[in-house]
Amino acid sequence: MKKIALVGCGLVGGSWSLVFARAGFSVTLYDPSPASIDIALQFVKKSSAALAEMDLLRGQKPEDIAARLKTAGSLEEAVHDADYVQESSPERLPIKQALYKEMAPLIKPDAMIGSSTSGLPPSSFTEDVPNRERCMVVHPLNPPHLIPLVELVPAPWTLPSIVDTAEALMRQLGQVPIRLNREVTGFIVNRLQGAILNEAFRLVEDGVCSAADIDAAMTEGLGLRWFFIGPFENIDLNAQGGLADYCAKLAPMNYAIAKEQVDPRKWTDVLLADVHDQMRQRTPMEQLDKRKAWRDRCLALFIRMKSNILKENS
Amino acid sequence: MKKIALVGCGLVGGSWSLVFARAGFSVTLYDPSPASIDIALQFVKKSSAALAEMDLLRGQKPEDIAARLKTAGSLEEAVHDADYVQESSPERLPIKQALYKEMAPLIKPDAMIGSSTSGLPPSSFTEDVPNRERCMVVHPLNPPHLIPLVELVPAPWTLPSIVDTAEALMRQLGQVPIRLNREVTGFIVNRLQGAILNEAFRLVEDGVCSAADIDAAMTEGLGLRWFFIGPFENIDLNAQGGLADYCAKLAPMNYAIAKEQVDPRKWTDVLLADVHDQMRQRTPMEQLDKRKAWRDRCLALFIRMKSNILKENS
Repeated sequence: MKKIALVGCGLVGGSWSLVFARAGFSVTLYDPSPASIDIALQFVKKSSAALAEMDLLRGQKPEDIAARLKTAGSLEEAVHDADYVQESSPERLPIKQALYKEMAPLIKPDAMIGSSTSGLPPSSFTEDVPNRERCMVVHPLNPPHLIPLVELVPAPWTLPSIVDTAEALMRQLGQVPIRLNREVTGFIVNRLQGAILNEAFRLVEDGVCSAADIDAAMTEGLGLRWFFIGPFENIDLNAQGGLADYCAKLAPMNYAIAKEQVDPRKWTDVLLADVHDQMRQRTPMEQLDKRKAWRDRCLALFIRMKSNILKENS
Repeated sequence: MKKIALVGCGLVGGSWSLVFARAGFSVTLYDPSPASIDIALQFVKKSSAALAEMDLLRGQKPEDIAARLKTAGSLEEAVHDADYVQESSPERLPIKQALYKEMAPLIKPDAMIGSSTSGLPPSSFTEDVPNRERCMVVHPLNPPHLIPLVELVPAPWTLPSIVDTAEALMRQLGQVPIRLNREVTGFIVNRLQGAILNEAFRLVEDGVCSAADIDAAMTEGLGLRWFFIGPFENIDLNAQGGLADYCAKLAPMNYAIAKEQVDPRKWTDVLLADVHDQMRQRTPMEQLDKRKAWRDRCLALFIRMKSNILKENS
């Protein structure tokens, strides 16, 4: 697998192009909007300089990255000789459905397509395309050039060998793929995040605590462990006899909690306005972009530091 | 508030004694088992040396910490002149009920008692004690000398001024208190963790993915953000128009997820045996203690690094 085509050059596509080029691949960028391609190229330029400064470019130079990127003036030009297409088009079903139909006759018979969609099941936009068994979801977290996790989600008709190929490719990129055995709503990441968000909104709506209290519970508590130890290993290390021992003691409390979380609630306008206002007291709307830049910088620093500390303490 | 009594010197009590002494308080340790007191003192000695080496002792010397600790031979001796009692007795209701009755006549009328319980509501063991309005839950995460979060949970009869006192004390210690307006099952932290665990077990039981995949979803994905940005701020920073904008787009997916998480499941023996086995493939039982030591060392290093990076990027 040598040639990569990126179809859709928004935030996600731009970051993907850096991920592929950083691993040595030739990457062709395409977007129906030429302006989006330019923005993506600028993003890669700026981000690869920042990563190089932090030693996160894995021995590459920003100019090497730039040299591996090409742009295409049409979808056909982008995908006709690609071995792998990473599709990051807008999250709207009719757009994806039309795009997959358009791509099918243009790509090589042995090429595969991974979709960056965070929420659309792969079956919803690949059912009617002739190459559907070579299509699946390859969902990154944003931004993939910093966050390693990638969810691999096959449609019912995706060939297992295609999932294998995607998994091997992601490892080659230095990403961390997890493999779902089938489609589920929200995949894994959004199901876990959804469980947290739904409970967090429930607690605020019921007047138990503030939004800031929820966030502190994570950043000053749970999140300090989950940064490097997952939920299962965390409980495995929290009892003398491992996970089985933990569950023998605490399954009843967790079941009691589950029984109190059975009312799926729509987030009401009143609730959302309340929590949104609480967020604005923390970060006024006009400072949101500055705060995002702060987040991205800290995220990069934390990830570098995590990698160093884990290497020194392996 | 000058004098602190620690009643119950297991893992949590031992770590608490370090937290209080590190902040300059005189601390009296008591446990019905003299051996437990000795173990706690050894723990503080060892841990304060380790923290000093990592610059996490806040300018104190290990010998200063040691000098602030006293031991008591009886409950009365421990609590009679204490301004604040941190109770960390075993998590069994009859034990706590008896202990609170025993303490009531022994402590000063203006003293207060905070319980370290992680799961028992404060009303369940303070209802019948005469000083019940000065009792509440002050629940740390383990170990409190590394993890700042503390949950403050009043019983229905706890005086608001007592919650204020506990909050101020926790801030003085350098902990981060969050304040629940009332008792709820599992407080905040275990409700959030429970939401994740219940969904994680559901996904494994339903054959969607492995336990390792769940853990990777956290450590290589969600947990990288939640380490320093809570769930609400995370979504606030993930849409152009902040939290309201995020929810306008993604409330339907989160509601769909909620509707699939309405079946409270008991964790079956078969499921627990399966996941426990998966954990043992990662860490054989005989290496669990070594892995816990690794976790504690990394946790301290990550927390120090987090503090430094946030200071440099504030």
